[in-house]
Amino acid sequence: MNPAEPQSDTPGAPGGGAAPVFVLVAPQLGENIGACARVMGNFAIPELRIVAPRDGWPNPAAETMAAGSGVLANAQVFDTLEAAVADCHRIYATTGTPRHMVKPVVTARAAMGEIRASLRDGQRAAIMFGAEKSGHSNEEIARARAVITLPVDPDFTSLNLAMACGVLAYEWRAGDGVPDGWKPMEGPATQGELDGLYAHLQDELDRAGFFYPPEKTPLMMQNLINIFARGGLSQQEVRTLRGAIKALTIGRGKARVVRTD
Amino acid sequence: MNPAEPQSDTPGAPGGGAAPVFVLVAPQLGENIGACARVMGNFAIPELRIVAPRDGWPNPAAETMAAGSGVLANAQVFDTLEAAVADCHRIYATTGTPRHMVKPVVTARAAMGEIRASLRDGQRAAIMFGAEKSGHSNEEIARARAVITLPVDPDFTSLNLAMACGVLAYEWRAGDGVPDGWKPMEGPATQGELDGLYAHLQDELDRAGFFYPPEKTPLMMQNLINIFARGGLSQQEVRTLRGAIKALTIGRGKARVVRTD
Repeated sequence: MNPAEPQSDTPGAPGGGAAPVFVLVAPQLGENIGACARVMGNFAIPELRIVAPRDGWPNPAAETMAAGSGVLANAQVFDTLEAAVADCHRIYATTGTPRHMVKPVVTARAAMGEIRASLRDGQRAAIMFGAEKSGHSNEEIARARAVITLPVDPDFTSLNLAMACGVLAYEWRAGDGVPDGWKPMEGPATQGELDGLYAHLQDELDRAGFFYPPEKTPLMMQNLINIFARGGLSQQEVRTLRGAIKALTIGRGKARVVRTD
Repeated sequence: MNPAEPQSDTPGAPGGGAAPVFVLVAPQLGENIGACARVMGNFAIPELRIVAPRDGWPNPAAETMAAGSGVLANAQVFDTLEAAVADCHRIYATTGTPRHMVKPVVTARAAMGEIRASLRDGQRAAIMFGAEKSGHSNEEIARARAVITLPVDPDFTSLNLAMACGVLAYEWRAGDGVPDGWKPMEGPATQGELDGLYAHLQDELDRAGFFYPPEKTPLMMQNLINIFARGGLSQQEVRTLRGAIKALTIGRGKARVVRTD
């Protein structure tokens, strides 16, 4: 068992105080510990502390489920909750069951806002998770500053331990928006390119006698333009559509559309 | 395999259109399907659709992991994705890897806002989840209105399938705040009760000669009051504290505190 060592304050580094510490209190299944470590890694929460794991430590089942998460290798194990949170300034308990204790109850989102503020003040925050099945004891909850609860169905509140960690880990990062590296709208077309497409389309439809009666042409074009304008076309897509229009018109004669209405 | 049947529009009922449909596309492990059903039940998302599960259906491993979630019993199984989403007006794909496709990329939170608006308009929305390991094919993503991504660590993006469902299920409910039934601050004390405590404390401290020099009394009392005022004391806690003060003073004489400073 490792003592609570002083942590580095490098942001982002394990123990760097750039994210809340997650504390598993008396977890039973190695699989759940590993799944917690995995999802903490997914959401870049580096510091996992484990209090008195039932099946000892290390635990091969945890390693399997961690899927290579570096969080597991850096996890610290403690004999007591007191030792695990001794260096923390602000601790939260998590529970799905009201305890009717005099204790503020906050949403995960609100808690993360409070934690972010306290981290900026140089404080260390921890979020505790109780054991599978039993959850936190009232003694554990009593020492927390507040209780975090999740908007679960009152008839089916029993969230898997790793799932609870995952939801909290997600919520910690949820304010970050779409990650860097996503460039889905690469190369959007300019309005000039779009107008070129529309003119091309109108010209070919006009040749086909599509605009009938002719005085309806502006309204019919407006409706067509509206369809393409909503799509947020890329430059490549404009080229593809113009190619499609060209392909549809190759070799055709000047035909009049026969209308049945 | 069940066809996509018309769904009831009763809010909250399975298939009621009061929540997005979750669609698992070609899931491999029954354990993951069951864990998805469990967490959907936790967050009251009733409708699970499963496309071509690798190990057939029903799957005992799914039932074990669902932990009694009614979502699993009501799950519908389809041969193709097309059949599974045929009645949906708005579908989202989920992926942790940028595909450089011309497709809006949104956060889970933004997607849930869009879905809420479309449900109010009587539309049905679906969120698709790709298979373990491979995730969505580009063909699957192409038919989505937008891609939902999560703020994962770019070096460790591989979220467990059920965990991805769990995070999205949580986000669907996250705007709901603290659930009903939590009354943690039951019986907060009135200001009169608090003032009674403060007066009791001041009186006993005064008897003990705590306020020295006497002109510092107001400031010292202000500091003490501030400690208790922050705590948001309940009526019972006020009674407990007054009992503690009384206990500390029973049988004592009028002693003067000896100060060494």
